[in-house]
Amino acid sequence: MNLFRRGKARIKKIQTKSGELEAPFFMPDATRGFVKSLSGKDLEEAGVVPMVVNTYHLFLRPEMDLIKRSGGIHKFMNWNGPLLSDSGGYQVFSLIHKNPKMGKITDDGAEFRSPLSGKKHYITPEKAIQIQFDLGVDMMVCLDDPPPNSYTKEKIEAAVERTLAWARRCMIEYKKQIKERKIEKENRPLIFCVIQGGEYLDLRKKCVEELIEIGLSEEGGPAMRWDGYGFGARHVDSEGNFLAEVLEYTADLIPENSLRFALGIGTPEDIVRSVQFGWDMFDCVIPTREARHGRIFLWKSNDLNGDFYETINISNSKFKDDFNPIEKECI
Amino acid sequence: MNLFRRGKARIKKIQTKSGELEAPFFMPDATRGFVKSLSGKDLEEAGVVPMVVNTYHLFLRPEMDLIKRSGGIHKFMNWNGPLLSDSGGYQVFSLIHKNPKMGKITDDGAEFRSPLSGKKHYITPEKAIQIQFDLGVDMMVCLDDPPPNSYTKEKIEAAVERTLAWARRCMIEYKKQIKERKIEKENRPLIFCVIQGGEYLDLRKKCVEELIEIGLSEEGGPAMRWDGYGFGARHVDSEGNFLAEVLEYTADLIPENSLRFALGIGTPEDIVRSVQFGWDMFDCVIPTREARHGRIFLWKSNDLNGDFYETINISNSKFKDDFNPIEKECI
Repeated sequence: MNLFRRGKARIKKIQTKSGELEAPFFMPDATRGFVKSLSGKDLEEAGVVPMVVNTYHLFLRPEMDLIKRSGGIHKFMNWNGPLLSDSGGYQVFSLIHKNPKMGKITDDGAEFRSPLSGKKHYITPEKAIQIQFDLGVDMMVCLDDPPPNSYTKEKIEAAVERTLAWARRCMIEYKKQIKERKIEKENRPLIFCVIQGGEYLDLRKKCVEELIEIGLSEEGGPAMRWDGYGFGARHVDSEGNFLAEVLEYTADLIPENSLRFALGIGTPEDIVRSVQFGWDMFDCVIPTREARHGRIFLWKSNDLNGDFYETINISNSKFKDDFNPIEKECI
Repeated sequence: MNLFRRGKARIKKIQTKSGELEAPFFMPDATRGFVKSLSGKDLEEAGVVPMVVNTYHLFLRPEMDLIKRSGGIHKFMNWNGPLLSDSGGYQVFSLIHKNPKMGKITDDGAEFRSPLSGKKHYITPEKAIQIQFDLGVDMMVCLDDPPPNSYTKEKIEAAVERTLAWARRCMIEYKKQIKERKIEKENRPLIFCVIQGGEYLDLRKKCVEELIEIGLSEEGGPAMRWDGYGFGARHVDSEGNFLAEVLEYTADLIPENSLRFALGIGTPEDIVRSVQFGWDMFDCVIPTREARHGRIFLWKSNDLNGDFYETINISNSKFKDDFNPIEKECI
């Protein structure tokens, strides 16, 4: 399987406070601290090392107070491997974009109603960072403003500006938390900013360049470069086409030594294509959700131009009489 | 935990073709070849060794043809431990007792409709034994006629007579199958007869005595003693009271060297009481079904006169903040 060694694919070793990772890697989504239907032991045996937890979901239920009292997200989950949390922004913004009655976005942050309790909450760049420190994750992500790709260029540019302003505030808060919590260098969580700009290459370029500047700024304390850069907003256009050019162009803009995190990607073909553009890290609900519904991805060939994998539905009656292992290599 | 070493409790080592067992033991019900929500690995780690599979359920779905083609029930389940199958009779008779339109019981056997497909099936003592040989289990049970305990003594006596006639036919068929399939001594499945008689001690006595005679008979081939005797029909009266006297009396009737199988028992207190009467083997859906619904049994004390265990509901909100292990001994 040398698909991941082609094109601009990179191999990178990453140190986190919960152990070493080797990119490129995929992180299953343990939304509320668990992957549905699988135990920690199952995940370990499947070779899962890092996972993603969702700040928004954990914040609403079971709520942060309980996670803090349990000793942090690793103890809450009983999982020792590296964990990355998102900022919660994507879910809050989707909620508001879909139904404006659910909240309001301002330059300061976003007010939103819990769909579970109806209770009002307020999220700011500072609060997103504080929550992720409270979780105790190994990798955290700045709050950003992810507009739908169908928005006008003006609206997307405004989202870039807000994302940059929030990244600046996140970095200041990050430095403050490191200092206040007296976190030693080896226990420092990695911090990721997010690149917006939709399908506009010039906006993506502008966003990355200004994010790099923020990493060089001494505002709030000595300069700290971003450990990684995330690809923000959806990676497909409004018709579902993969934004190959935007993904390749954006990866090339990111400093060589920084991690490149393609948030929310994705299908096997999208992951493979993104790896070849130089993206290092991926998370998505697709693999675990598909498997839970009996749809399983099988390798077919190493030819990326052809169909390099196929999807079988294990519940299909034609497999009733098939006593072979699903993949011959997996016995 | 010395509860199982009191009264007439026995310790017995049992050889099966899939390994040794030590009585007293409990068998979870893997009705259709699996225990809901648990993998084989989970069961192994929980210390489960033997399990029960249900002939009736496997016969209706996935059907015997598929199990035979998979290489037998052990391969079908991917489980190497000892397996016991019931005769399927209890389910067929319950079906017909509840709704006479679903089938008809005669001295030859029972005709019944599949609740899944509506298709007509016919089960006889001979067929019940053949199916269990086809399954390839380690322990099998004769087809019997289990009447509700609320029936009149006349009806229960008739069920005893039919159970005895069928036990005789099962033993003849068992000898025939051993011979036809050329099964070596060390691969011989153990065979259990079933004792009927309801709450009537004289009928239980009569039933055991005649079953012993069948084990000494040379009809169909050299005499083969029953490996074990099962307690047939429900172990509670129509008001739900535990039939302590009947269970103790019946256990005492069974030859010392034979296994004593208390079918369908049960709750922790009923298992403990039955062990003290000298019963060796138990199966029931209660422990796994309760656990699946969050109800967990915890040891409290070794005093059987008091409450020696308690049931907690792990979904109860009072456990939300409780980060302790469920039992202190289980860490």
